[in-house]
Amino acid sequence: MINKLIENIKKTEAPIVVGLDPMLGYVPKYILDKAVKEQGETLEAAGAAVWEYNKGIIDATCDLIPAVKPQIAMYEQFGIPGIEAFKKTVDYCKEKGLVVIGDIKRGDIGSTSTAYAVGHLGKVQIGSKKLSGFDEDFVTVNPYLGSDGVNPFIDVCKEEKKGIFVLVKTSNPSSGEFQDKKINGRPLYEIVGEKVAEWGAGCMGGSYSYVGAVVGATYPEMGKVLRKIMPKTYILVPGYGAQGGTAADLKPYFNEDGLGAIVNSSRGIICAYKQEKYAQYGESGYAEASRQAVIDMKNDISSIF
Amino acid sequence: MINKLIENIKKTEAPIVVGLDPMLGYVPKYILDKAVKEQGETLEAAGAAVWEYNKGIIDATCDLIPAVKPQIAMYEQFGIPGIEAFKKTVDYCKEKGLVVIGDIKRGDIGSTSTAYAVGHLGKVQIGSKKLSGFDEDFVTVNPYLGSDGVNPFIDVCKEEKKGIFVLVKTSNPSSGEFQDKKINGRPLYEIVGEKVAEWGAGCMGGSYSYVGAVVGATYPEMGKVLRKIMPKTYILVPGYGAQGGTAADLKPYFNEDGLGAIVNSSRGIICAYKQEKYAQYGESGYAEASRQAVIDMKNDISSIF
Repeated sequence: MINKLIENIKKTEAPIVVGLDPMLGYVPKYILDKAVKEQGETLEAAGAAVWEYNKGIIDATCDLIPAVKPQIAMYEQFGIPGIEAFKKTVDYCKEKGLVVIGDIKRGDIGSTSTAYAVGHLGKVQIGSKKLSGFDEDFVTVNPYLGSDGVNPFIDVCKEEKKGIFVLVKTSNPSSGEFQDKKINGRPLYEIVGEKVAEWGAGCMGGSYSYVGAVVGATYPEMGKVLRKIMPKTYILVPGYGAQGGTAADLKPYFNEDGLGAIVNSSRGIICAYKQEKYAQYGESGYAEASRQAVIDMKNDISSIF
Repeated sequence: MINKLIENIKKTEAPIVVGLDPMLGYVPKYILDKAVKEQGETLEAAGAAVWEYNKGIIDATCDLIPAVKPQIAMYEQFGIPGIEAFKKTVDYCKEKGLVVIGDIKRGDIGSTSTAYAVGHLGKVQIGSKKLSGFDEDFVTVNPYLGSDGVNPFIDVCKEEKKGIFVLVKTSNPSSGEFQDKKINGRPLYEIVGEKVAEWGAGCMGGSYSYVGAVVGATYPEMGKVLRKIMPKTYILVPGYGAQGGTAADLKPYFNEDGLGAIVNSSRGIICAYKQEKYAQYGESGYAEASRQAVIDMKNDISSIF
């Protein structure tokens, strides 16, 4: 799957992933109103609205981008109807040829991590059948529990030819509270990064491993160090745009082959129509606004090469 | 909710939580066969079987125990039908007066953590209505992302009078890979423990905070230190029984008031009927076997006081 991701990136010339993180406040009013008219002020209406909103964005951007990253929390907040919208979104994006990175940040131990891995990347055995619960291509994984938490994901990835991105250094302001703590003079995120490189060494697709890392765009100096520690690791970079990361900040995340990183933007794309810059599209043009925002992001990022 | 948990513990004289972690291999054959007969070898059948299995255990044990801890991964592996079984289980346990600790180990940043918190502990606004997606009493939270990840949960807990347990030192063999790393001579889990005490100070129910901690039974020496660092923190203790923790190991987790800790057992209770000790119950007596296992666990733990 890491090879398909790289292929898609080369084809689109866009190391970009669109974060499908549909806050209800982002959904144009006419879409939500229609759903509420049909199903009342219910979780079902919210799920339906989110799905229709997503579909518009996917249709308008899928030829320009290699991958999407739905953030499951934004669906889970609407209970089961929300999770149904998540599944529809994942399945639809895959139909469109996009690589789907499930931003689930799961992490547990042993059989519990296996259950998450099976549920999101693999197949669960029921009688004589093997069935998919959800079916993302990659998921994000939290490393706090150590190898016991990560290895079950790797096992499923090997079997299913899928991949993971392990949180190393996150983009948020307080990420340093624990991640930057010094251990023999070196921050924890470097130790985690080394571990990711180690886990990934046995999991090579071609030039890159299918055990990737998450490193926030908001800490480019740390990105530079982590790039060196994990030379064959694909880096998923959140924090561009709305969180403050700029194109110039992104350069250290890429290798000399122009590969090795994929940059996420969520709000900046899916909620572009609310920015002054794209105001002319209006609410009903939210999908076209997101298309233009992708083009602008692509141009912005290409300026660093 | 921390006060209700303590009340329930006092009433049952059992600082015990039953982990409802239904691997399909634990479900008696006759239950799974019935579900498959009705719905084929499908995710729906797995969800139905898991729910019936859980219901038997809940009915057989609910008068003896203060709380349950369903592990969402074990439901998520069956996709949406599995998550439906999770929700049914949560709702049913609450009807029975049990405190429900959703073992979800979520953790993200800002609005994303808010979405998880709202989805599992709070209410989401849809038009003029506030609706619950899931509705656990407590959830477990991963601290790797720092305060940005935890505070949104605390905010929702304040509003809804609910609570969280933050992972501090997990019970698994590799938990030390990152958690034990020394920072100025002190392990990371102590730094996290201090932070939990700090987060919890503003969140007191009565004598205890509704910001709790997870500390594995398999590391009693560390439990002793963490008990001192977090005197007003309720500690959720996994790792008893199947993972190797004994009653003697548990003593340091409790305060002198006999409170301050609640011990989880999953397999040891819900899969008791597969142990030689409870073999006489047979498969059809799996629920009664789990009842006897709760009584035995209660007696075992009471020996330390």
